Amino acid sequence: MPASPDPARPRIVFSGAATFDTIFKLDVLPKGPGKVLPSDAVQVAHGMASSAAAAAAKLGGRSLLFARVGDDAIGIKIIEDLTAAGVDCTYVRRVAEARSPLCAVLVDAAGERLVVPFYDPKLDRSTDWLPLEQVAEADAVLVDVRWPEGATKVLEAARDAGIPAVLDADVGPKETIVALAGLATHAVFSEPAATIVTGEAEPEKALRALGRRFENFLAVTAGPEGCFWLEREIDMVRQLRAPKVVAVDTLAAGDVFHGAFTLAVAEGQSIPDAIAFANAAAALKCTVFGGRLGAPTREEVRAALNEKGNS
Amino acid sequence: MPASPDPARPRIVFSGAATFDTIFKLDVLPKGPGKVLPSDAVQVAHGMASSAAAAAAKLGGRSLLFARVGDDAIGIKIIEDLTAAGVDCTYVRRVAEARSPLCAVLVDAAGERLVVPFYDPKLDRSTDWLPLEQVAEADAVLVDVRWPEGATKVLEAARDAGIPAVLDADVGPKETIVALAGLATHAVFSEPAATIVTGEAEPEKALRALGRRFENFLAVTAGPEGCFWLEREIDMVRQLRAPKVVAVDTLAAGDVFHGAFTLAVAEGQSIPDAIAFANAAAALKCTVFGGRLGAPTREEVRAALNEKGNS
Repeated sequence: MPASPDPARPRIVFSGAATFDTIFKLDVLPKGPGKVLPSDAVQVAHGMASSAAAAAAKLGGRSLLFARVGDDAIGIKIIEDLTAAGVDCTYVRRVAEARSPLCAVLVDAAGERLVVPFYDPKLDRSTDWLPLEQVAEADAVLVDVRWPEGATKVLEAARDAGIPAVLDADVGPKETIVALAGLATHAVFSEPAATIVTGEAEPEKALRALGRRFENFLAVTAGPEGCFWLEREIDMVRQLRAPKVVAVDTLAAGDVFHGAFTLAVAEGQSIPDAIAFANAAAALKCTVFGGRLGAPTREEVRAALNEKGNS
Repeated sequence: MPASPDPARPRIVFSGAATFDTIFKLDVLPKGPGKVLPSDAVQVAHGMASSAAAAAAKLGGRSLLFARVGDDAIGIKIIEDLTAAGVDCTYVRRVAEARSPLCAVLVDAAGERLVVPFYDPKLDRSTDWLPLEQVAEADAVLVDVRWPEGATKVLEAARDAGIPAVLDADVGPKETIVALAGLATHAVFSEPAATIVTGEAEPEKALRALGRRFENFLAVTAGPEGCFWLEREIDMVRQLRAPKVVAVDTLAAGDVFHGAFTLAVAEGQSIPDAIAFANAAAALKCTVFGGRLGAPTREEVRAALNEKGNS
């Protein structure tokens, strides 16, 4: 593993979705046609890998993003937004004659969400342009399941480089999740994705089933329940609860978790410390409306961990 | 009434809403939380007066817009979009420290719509910056009910100038609709707005009730049923049906109607001709996905009218 020029600021390659989201805050979600009046709204570049990259940058990491957008004005806006968030977008590719991914998100008072994501079929899936030499110079990678071809290449390059390779295993086709999980050093599942792969609804049972299938580090995130992971040495499923917060917007909380977790792993934190760190970052995010814009700073996470006596 | 420098291209002042819309095409509208995948999506500057201005410009008019946006990137985008559509945005005001209106629209296969519009309360409502001298130089005005303070000033200036003043009387507070309708020379109601003012659900009954209250030209638009209006001389409600089309997106059809109607009135067309013209323009719009982007050209409207033997 090549040493980072600044060991306190690990270099992480993120690969996956970049979308332009309009997020509306409502009292209740609509049940059909008509007009509903939101109390707030923001527009921001999102996407699982992109939001994770922005969250990691805000926490002090150096985030490099591999992603595809269209060659339209929204594509430029996505790149501007993420660049302003501290993400290096040198390798965000603007695909000719494609439109950028667009997404509307309605968030209700209880944090329930309606998500309407549009992906242009013309966003080509080729990977020959991917600058995989950047992976060899990184301290870790994180990939999502939205662009499996890119994720596969990045995970393979990370294996060759011998660096930690984290999979944000969210819902998607089962075969995609399984194939990518087999290539990652750390596969962190959402509850629904763990259920898709194992058929088990309980995180603990799902983790045991995953443990029989994969040999890498395995975890399942579970919202306010925090994170469950498999401790293979002692053959136990461990759980670390998230700090208690009043959630106003859980959008991108999972992405913030993955960004923070990957950063912590790249920094060499132990698994329990990395999970406590990611739990705190995700919980703080939930207290602020606006998706990833609510991601916390390092100081905020540190303060939350100190309050819990966890740091 | 000052003569237009180019009588074939009347100059029209539009006053009211300017929003930035993301429009998604779905099979069915969502009924609660979750994720729904649209088959298409576009982003475009909309708003009742703005869409009417763009439609009138596409039909050959010279459209000048009075509206307010925020001092954010979306405000710039709204102005760019409408300028590209041929609308003079010299007097679209960017309000300091306000965010631009944002709107998500979901359109289902039957053309049913869910609309989520966000207006920043900080978009100040003052009218002292309005260049009312531009109204004196115009051939007609159209105002919507989304910015009543601006609409009032523009309608009063139009009365002083002796030019046609059209109100797009869509749903809003009853007192707002009533106050603005009293100032317009032509008040064109949507069915729901006519019901709000009169309590009558049927366009014909609503028009008779409106006729007892107001002395100006009165009409009610009724989607595929076309347009009903009150012919005072013969004390009759007349109806002109819209051309039959397969509707794929009715978003902004009303705005296209109002833009086309105001242009036709400014050109000196008779009321039946103006309504046939507006009916055809609105019907053609409904055949194209993407809100006002589906507004037709003059040639397309002319062809549709010739097909019907109406021109």
